[in-house]
Amino acid sequence: MKCKKFIFKQHFDGVPKKSDFELVEEELPPLQDGDVLFEALYISVDPYMRPVSVKLPLGVTMIGAQVARVVESKHPDFEVGKNVVGQFGWRNKTVANPDTVLSGFGEKSRPYVLPDFGDIPLSTAIGVLGMPGNTAYFGLTRLCTPKKGETLVVTGASGAVGSLVGQIGKILGLNVIGFVGSDDKAKWLTEELNFDHAFNYKTCDIAESLKKAAPNGVDCYFDNVGGRISSAVLDAMNPFGRVACCGYISGYNADPKNPPLAPIVQPNIVLKQLKLEGFLSSKWKDCWFEGIEKNLQFIKEGKLKFKETIVKGFDKTDEAFISLFTSGSDNAGKVVVQV
Amino acid sequence: MKCKKFIFKQHFDGVPKKSDFELVEEELPPLQDGDVLFEALYISVDPYMRPVSVKLPLGVTMIGAQVARVVESKHPDFEVGKNVVGQFGWRNKTVANPDTVLSGFGEKSRPYVLPDFGDIPLSTAIGVLGMPGNTAYFGLTRLCTPKKGETLVVTGASGAVGSLVGQIGKILGLNVIGFVGSDDKAKWLTEELNFDHAFNYKTCDIAESLKKAAPNGVDCYFDNVGGRISSAVLDAMNPFGRVACCGYISGYNADPKNPPLAPIVQPNIVLKQLKLEGFLSSKWKDCWFEGIEKNLQFIKEGKLKFKETIVKGFDKTDEAFISLFTSGSDNAGKVVVQV
Repeated sequence: MKCKKFIFKQHFDGVPKKSDFELVEEELPPLQDGDVLFEALYISVDPYMRPVSVKLPLGVTMIGAQVARVVESKHPDFEVGKNVVGQFGWRNKTVANPDTVLSGFGEKSRPYVLPDFGDIPLSTAIGVLGMPGNTAYFGLTRLCTPKKGETLVVTGASGAVGSLVGQIGKILGLNVIGFVGSDDKAKWLTEELNFDHAFNYKTCDIAESLKKAAPNGVDCYFDNVGGRISSAVLDAMNPFGRVACCGYISGYNADPKNPPLAPIVQPNIVLKQLKLEGFLSSKWKDCWFEGIEKNLQFIKEGKLKFKETIVKGFDKTDEAFISLFTSGSDNAGKVVVQV
Repeated sequence: MKCKKFIFKQHFDGVPKKSDFELVEEELPPLQDGDVLFEALYISVDPYMRPVSVKLPLGVTMIGAQVARVVESKHPDFEVGKNVVGQFGWRNKTVANPDTVLSGFGEKSRPYVLPDFGDIPLSTAIGVLGMPGNTAYFGLTRLCTPKKGETLVVTGASGAVGSLVGQIGKILGLNVIGFVGSDDKAKWLTEELNFDHAFNYKTCDIAESLKKAAPNGVDCYFDNVGGRISSAVLDAMNPFGRVACCGYISGYNADPKNPPLAPIVQPNIVLKQLKLEGFLSSKWKDCWFEGIEKNLQFIKEGKLKFKETIVKGFDKTDEAFISLFTSGSDNAGKVVVQV
């Protein structure tokens, strides 16, 4: 039996492009004891794949999670017909022993059978009810440790993670300010997602915007972008502010030999006694389902909205990924490939 | 009765200079109930005063701690003849009610009567047995949370704080690497203070030095300098590394409208899940004497050496302060003015 997969063909130089990947066929091996045949339903493309891929050897399958269905099984925990989330990478069929699957970060990452999502689409298992949702929920609640009435800034605020962070911030009673890359996205945040303020970082003055929207200063910062914007947000932070460092999309496509420069962060960190913590969602693997249940509950209560941009066709996975980095793209929320 | 004091005469522009201060006389008020007359013995000059003074109104007394003796007292807790540490600023005599004294950061900061230091000079009450010592002890143990066998980097490593941090790191069983501004200082660290490695940042390649001295990566970073050197140290850190952000002397004299730039820190923070925390020593005011006792014990056991540069004469306090920022200065350890 054959499968299709994208391999990592050449190292990225700036924004990823189609020629960095190659779509190839692979002959799948017969199932050994403990193996499962998974058929991909939805493939996840996420910004983190850009920096993490830098360390991949050429020729390997591109990394990432997918929603897949168990089609054949020689493993007692994975019944035929069950849906799972697994770190199988960009491939439409996978034969694997679930006990030995590794994530793109090289850590053991056992696929898990999905709980019942009710009416909510299965694709959310790699969105609001999966990694991006848990990244938002745990990153905000555990690292920003917000208190009701405080002010939260979210950058990359219309993305898969950022759009959830701001809404969870509102659920927790915060003054929520989002920065995004277009006026339309800003409008979406304030008009549909309940953000208090949203600004287009390309046209606004960050310091002035924060003076208006955060007259009492910023207590919590959920950082998806890094660089100059983050330095400016730190300028507006209050003593003992907390920063959850989730991503640095402003630097993902930079030449590693020539890293981007930004105003130094230490003056604010020292004088305001700020705490910054970088994290991957795997930090909370031991309480993973707590995050999923929380977000599921918020959705059912009508407090948490999610948006998906569905790209149809496995062969377009590379294009879906590239669109994450295309300035001015219309993507908002989570980008998912429907196989 | 008259006293002498230095007032903050004009805002710093680059490195502080004598004309930024003015030495004036003041008529002291008679003591009210609760007041104490303190006579300064040693005045502290510390790098932190540079950035903190930026926010002072012109004309106020320069901020800072001193070792003083109680000369007259209308307060039951402050007997005549006792020695204290108090945040009285750059003045040789002070009339104050101890219950209302504020630190240079505007926080309540009650003078405290000194415990018995035995043979150890009283000047250390503003050095190894005071703020700098506690900054080193608590910053390292509480924020870097080092484990035996790990690697620690200290920048500003020959300073009042840094020289203690590295030695405490050795007491805790760490591989200790210091960065300093001259070959002589580097030699002092390795030959006298037991550091494993020390480099002159002005002439070495930071990345190459760390490759040699920290072949297994850096776990803990005690940062006194910020900026480019700190970005380079973060490049060498291991996953889950901890950074105690104590100072940013590389940026103290910069024009605030034109802050220094450095390679962005977020790539390392996110991908390695680093934790950075800025702090002032007042963070541990509730366990202040625990730090003093620990350092006193280390000294008595012969494990912790301290160096003081004593400047004689109250009128030279401004010059002593300025020397902290003079590149290539011979200062090492703690600079103290003997009144």
